[in-house]
Amino acid sequence: MPLCVRCRAKEAVVYQPHTGDRLCRVCFISDIIARVSREIFRYGMIRYGDRILIGISGGKDSFVLLDILSQIYDPSKLGGVTVVEGIEGYNRVEHLEEIRRSASQRGVDIHVISLKDLWGASVDDMVRASIAKGQRISPCTYCGIHRRKSINLVARELGYDRVATAHNLDDEVQTILINIMRGDIDRLYMNHPLRPRLSKLFIPKIKPLRKIYEWETAKYAYLAGYRPQEVECPYLEHFPSLRVRIRDIVYKIETSRPGTMLKLIEWFDREFNPSKVEKAVKLGECSICGEPTSPGRSICKSCELQLKTLGSARTAFLRPGTSQYGASALLS
Amino acid sequence: MPLCVRCRAKEAVVYQPHTGDRLCRVCFISDIIARVSREIFRYGMIRYGDRILIGISGGKDSFVLLDILSQIYDPSKLGGVTVVEGIEGYNRVEHLEEIRRSASQRGVDIHVISLKDLWGASVDDMVRASIAKGQRISPCTYCGIHRRKSINLVARELGYDRVATAHNLDDEVQTILINIMRGDIDRLYMNHPLRPRLSKLFIPKIKPLRKIYEWETAKYAYLAGYRPQEVECPYLEHFPSLRVRIRDIVYKIETSRPGTMLKLIEWFDREFNPSKVEKAVKLGECSICGEPTSPGRSICKSCELQLKTLGSARTAFLRPGTSQYGASALLS
Repeated sequence: MPLCVRCRAKEAVVYQPHTGDRLCRVCFISDIIARVSREIFRYGMIRYGDRILIGISGGKDSFVLLDILSQIYDPSKLGGVTVVEGIEGYNRVEHLEEIRRSASQRGVDIHVISLKDLWGASVDDMVRASIAKGQRISPCTYCGIHRRKSINLVARELGYDRVATAHNLDDEVQTILINIMRGDIDRLYMNHPLRPRLSKLFIPKIKPLRKIYEWETAKYAYLAGYRPQEVECPYLEHFPSLRVRIRDIVYKIETSRPGTMLKLIEWFDREFNPSKVEKAVKLGECSICGEPTSPGRSICKSCELQLKTLGSARTAFLRPGTSQYGASALLS
Repeated sequence: MPLCVRCRAKEAVVYQPHTGDRLCRVCFISDIIARVSREIFRYGMIRYGDRILIGISGGKDSFVLLDILSQIYDPSKLGGVTVVEGIEGYNRVEHLEEIRRSASQRGVDIHVISLKDLWGASVDDMVRASIAKGQRISPCTYCGIHRRKSINLVARELGYDRVATAHNLDDEVQTILINIMRGDIDRLYMNHPLRPRLSKLFIPKIKPLRKIYEWETAKYAYLAGYRPQEVECPYLEHFPSLRVRIRDIVYKIETSRPGTMLKLIEWFDREFNPSKVEKAVKLGECSICGEPTSPGRSICKSCELQLKTLGSARTAFLRPGTSQYGASALLS
């Protein structure tokens, strides 16, 4: 086996097509940590003293994010949030224990929240209600909207300054291309790391892994000894097919021209800097739950879905100082 | 049947999803002609007195381009060029006669040129030579490069000021997305209607149909009574699959959100205006044929392919004042 091109001492175990380098375990992990740190500094993702809440699903990407942030930043300033979606066979106790264990090894507390506790309906409940009403609402829509809303709520109520998510380069490139293909150009600017804060209620999100290939997070997790029991979501068939089709095309191009995805996101970073846009978008507030909502909307997507499928919408709240969560009386 | 929403006199025969309008035959054709004219003026595609050479394949798009340009511009300033690729079963005498007929009805002369006469090898010859040498060169690559080179040569030698091609909105959107997905951002600027002239040897190209949907050119051709015998190219299986896959995704999005393709090209027109780029690309000249070539290359793609597959490259020339074409002695 060839030697690592960086340290020239240990055996190379990873080949990086986008650099053409063969690296050993240590140099590969250092490379990823350095690139993540550089990205954080480049866009000022973390200010001195910030409390960061990490979204942790237990998959390889969120493990890598937790592992790296706890190495380059004070673990006492970090927290993790894990959302129990309420999907039978998918959310499992062993899984939560594994997340707690790997976080506590790194000195990071985990907050576990459940969609059912917060909003009165798990994803399974919503799917059943939706089928009973003859509606065609994708479980991924309900799940995504409520996961994001819940994480923002927890971050805000518990005094975090940033929410860190584990989106990788592959995710980001797909999102950019989907927005371009749909002609949603405004959204491109809103996905840039330098976008302005849209609402005081909305805790800014950072994506430290946005320039790390998905195969790299998988390799990193493997080399770091992380072996989660991967359970496939039973609603996988509902996953947006547009994203899958775009992903396949991007992989084909990346294979024949390694580095294309990085080139594309670098172009995006130059081209869609929101400081180029004159007027900033201002978010409104939902008239039911008070959470931020898209411009021009009086109620948010979450309340709209709850009203449509469950017949009522509720305002969730957290009991300060505890990890207990409750929900207000049902509204309309 | 409902009445046309424009004239409110005749029966609507076309539904335009991107406007939501139902139009009669006359109002639909007027709409297309007005949009093409507006696009020509918007980007100054034609200056007063320009001689325009139209690339005519005989398909619906080039028929529509010929029909519209001969209505809005002096036909004596127009010419057509048809390239005989040398593909058995595809190039047919009836087809050429049909092209000549529809052009002469509109007062436009047609120049017919053959790839074999100009470059010593038809597409079929090249495919045979390529197979014999165990090479994997796509017929579409040889055909595309030599068709473009030949048309430019004819335009220049016969004193035309512009080459008009019949690329429609679908073609353009696919090209934009392919360039983005490949990270070929420089090419995006070079595909903009306002790109500067890159070389004196290179006759500027215009694409008057770039904001007309392909279904619209098909409908226009049909309503104008054009019924070409459509013959499929036998090399169709070699057509780039990336373009086909992107086309399918774009059609799916366009169906659920009509007007997306127009929105996308309008964004492209705003965003990739080459005046934004500081240094202009300068084309070089091929050391074999003297034709323009990409920056940093000493020989052009055409000569490279000829050398690789045919073992020699040649410089084509035209006999001035005639429609006869010859080729210089073989080189190297």
